[in-house]
Amino acid sequence: MSDVTAWRDFFVATDAAGLATLARATELAIGSLDQPAGGPRSNRTPAQLRAGVRSLDVCPLEGVALDTVLDELGAAVWAHGVRPLDVACVAHLHPPSVVPAVVTELTIASSNQSMDSWDQAPAATEVELHLMDFLGARIGFSKRASGVMTSGGTASNVLGLTLARSWAASKIGVDVLKTGLPDEARTWRILASDQAHFSVQRAAAQLGLGRDAVVTIATDSSGAMNIGALDAALEGLDADGLSPIALCATAGTTDLGAIDPLEAIAQRARSVGAWLHVDAAVAGAFIMSEILRPRLRGLSLADSVTIDFHKLWWQPFNASALVVSDVERFDLLRVRSNYLDRGDELEGMVNLVGRSLDTSRRFDAAKVVASLRTIGQRAFAAMLEHLVELNVYAAQSIDARNDLELVAPASTVSCVFDAPGYDADDLRRVQQELLAEGAMVLGRTEIHGRAALKFTFMNPLATRDDVDQLLTVVAGRLPAR
Amino acid sequence: MSDVTAWRDFFVATDAAGLATLARATELAIGSLDQPAGGPRSNRTPAQLRAGVRSLDVCPLEGVALDTVLDELGAAVWAHGVRPLDVACVAHLHPPSVVPAVVTELTIASSNQSMDSWDQAPAATEVELHLMDFLGARIGFSKRASGVMTSGGTASNVLGLTLARSWAASKIGVDVLKTGLPDEARTWRILASDQAHFSVQRAAAQLGLGRDAVVTIATDSSGAMNIGALDAALEGLDADGLSPIALCATAGTTDLGAIDPLEAIAQRARSVGAWLHVDAAVAGAFIMSEILRPRLRGLSLADSVTIDFHKLWWQPFNASALVVSDVERFDLLRVRSNYLDRGDELEGMVNLVGRSLDTSRRFDAAKVVASLRTIGQRAFAAMLEHLVELNVYAAQSIDARNDLELVAPASTVSCVFDAPGYDADDLRRVQQELLAEGAMVLGRTEIHGRAALKFTFMNPLATRDDVDQLLTVVAGRLPAR
Repeated sequence: MSDVTAWRDFFVATDAAGLATLARATELAIGSLDQPAGGPRSNRTPAQLRAGVRSLDVCPLEGVALDTVLDELGAAVWAHGVRPLDVACVAHLHPPSVVPAVVTELTIASSNQSMDSWDQAPAATEVELHLMDFLGARIGFSKRASGVMTSGGTASNVLGLTLARSWAASKIGVDVLKTGLPDEARTWRILASDQAHFSVQRAAAQLGLGRDAVVTIATDSSGAMNIGALDAALEGLDADGLSPIALCATAGTTDLGAIDPLEAIAQRARSVGAWLHVDAAVAGAFIMSEILRPRLRGLSLADSVTIDFHKLWWQPFNASALVVSDVERFDLLRVRSNYLDRGDELEGMVNLVGRSLDTSRRFDAAKVVASLRTIGQRAFAAMLEHLVELNVYAAQSIDARNDLELVAPASTVSCVFDAPGYDADDLRRVQQELLAEGAMVLGRTEIHGRAALKFTFMNPLATRDDVDQLLTVVAGRLPAR
Repeated sequence: MSDVTAWRDFFVATDAAGLATLARATELAIGSLDQPAGGPRSNRTPAQLRAGVRSLDVCPLEGVALDTVLDELGAAVWAHGVRPLDVACVAHLHPPSVVPAVVTELTIASSNQSMDSWDQAPAATEVELHLMDFLGARIGFSKRASGVMTSGGTASNVLGLTLARSWAASKIGVDVLKTGLPDEARTWRILASDQAHFSVQRAAAQLGLGRDAVVTIATDSSGAMNIGALDAALEGLDADGLSPIALCATAGTTDLGAIDPLEAIAQRARSVGAWLHVDAAVAGAFIMSEILRPRLRGLSLADSVTIDFHKLWWQPFNASALVVSDVERFDLLRVRSNYLDRGDELEGMVNLVGRSLDTSRRFDAAKVVASLRTIGQRAFAAMLEHLVELNVYAAQSIDARNDLELVAPASTVSCVFDAPGYDADDLRRVQQELLAEGAMVLGRTEIHGRAALKFTFMNPLATRDDVDQLLTVVAGRLPAR
């Protein structure tokens, strides 16, 4: 039955013949991306897409030639994907990806290192640690900082709040990972603004505290946490005998791009003895720009910070990091595995499994490093600054119109607006029609109970003319009165 | 400041010029993999690797040419990675990756769909659902089955046990995600064998139950759960007023490859009203072989099943799935997000965020489908069967020798052994020397307190001659007596 020769071409080999096979296959794959241009997405309905995809047998008895398979994927999938590089793709924090990252993905997958143990990723482990040190320095942490790559902002937030929970428990002599939530946990609260990402509530749910353990702090009109409201909430907790174990600040809210007053929040966290986690998934990239970085003042006072490379760092999914102010904080998580983390190895071998909630883990750090080295700090900062300016331009343009109205001041890269005299249902129809036609992938959300539309600018190639055009299309789609 | 033209080449575009840029860059990336052949890894020390990596400035002020960056990565990283295709790379469940998956990674990263919402992944959503249906059918579930891709076996196990926790809570009228662990949670127990993956304990820790909530069931000499011990444990729990909320069976343990008696365990789960999660990360691929599939008898009685594509499906990291017997089970997890999961959309739009613990999520299903269609069921099954046979051959060869001794009968693709007259320290030295020299990436673990070495066969191109050679090298490395 064994037929090793026939199987050879299935596997990525790095000898001359293997690399030639890989090069040919890669050419076919790139060819599969060559689909008719069609705006931000095609106009196929869910049912049509389903039929196209379901016509493919996932695993026929005999394999199909690779060029056929890639062509099929091209026609059924890539032709009908969303195109983040299209200027009318403005719904989500969904970036177009950069070439150095994408081609490095090919080498990451070929080499297939696994980040859990040094003997599955010897040089790769050093790359990840090097990148984490770079982030720590940029954040303004001391040299004791480090971090770990995760699969996304949600996972980074969960990890940060997992550490916060363990820390709170350790202060009362409890090893929560071993013995579970103590009775005192009923009094534990996590504070976050009403504009914080829903993953904060999800983390509380996951950790056994429940979403109800998240105390929601009101925001000002920009969407940033109101410090007066935070102080009142802290006083209220104290009066009720409840314990704020973590303050979770947001640097760049999902809808409004608002940045909470980090320094003031950090001061409160210190004074009540709470862990400070900053979800900087959106605006964390500002650490790369001398112009934008001051907006993150206070970030270096955090205990843990979420950085999402697959947002304003233009990395393909997945690439996120949880950075901690002191590498020893990861001791709060320490587990031992007989086969991975044996602790009796060659000097200098680091097994990253000890600081992660994952085991097998992709070497995503490589694509981030390849991208940053290729783009350089100057161009990176300029692209970021361009997007922030473009967003201000969009907000000003909306402000100058009578038919659209800003729901909040513009911040970071998103801009939320509605249309005077139109209700939630009208706005829904605008967004759904544009999506169905493939004319625009527009955001839609709700701010303080008010239905709204949203632009999120992730593509540095977009211009003011493009913004003008987007506004014309949206306004033109409002039903006649 | 804006310089859109200068930035254009950074981004992946799918017009003719963009694809040409991508093709050139890809050629360079493939070139970076062309490193001197050197066995399963190079002989560089951690300190040497660190120096090589640390010499690279992560983000210089001005960007460096892509060809230089890729060359640097080649020399500092890919040349010194572990090579899973090398026949002496046998430590972990760490597979060589297949060409269709690797080249599809390039298109996944180029297209950059995000699986959380339909409007970030319209066709991609259908592909993931199609693949989940395929898995459900292969497992033997009814048409009500579905699933979701996750970042790894650990994440899949955490998701499965999160559902189990919610299910237990719902039976006593508690929404645990909202209100946190109820008092009754102190009595909740998760049962798993002493050979189960450590992520089961980690999941219990994460969920607030604590590792102590995992009741460890003894295994027989093969490493499979002992049903007598399970029955005794269940009786003990009952006598103590404790409640088994989940039975976690393993289909393919990490060290010994043992498959728990799934049918018998399922019968116990039913009778005590517990959720049955099967961690089939290792042996789940057996659903693809008519010869091997009977070993998973009872799998279709599970409530949730972990399948790891980045193990014996030869996918690059990350690619895992959690499959549930009934899609409605995901309602246990349901959260609503204003901007993602609005529930008032075009007919047929599915937002997968509702069934995942992640938000942004990579379209890893594409590479799995591309690989399965290219390889086909016959060749896939043959490769798997070859590995299982090779493992049996290795075990028989060890059995026939005087200098090495099997620690347990061989099962699946791993083989654990020691050397009579040598202690843990001797075995550690053998493994560490071979690793340091780059001669072999050999596994080392501990079974029931007994130190051991381990082969894990993941590479279908390996032959019996290769196994003979591995044994000669290991035995030859034992210190002279």
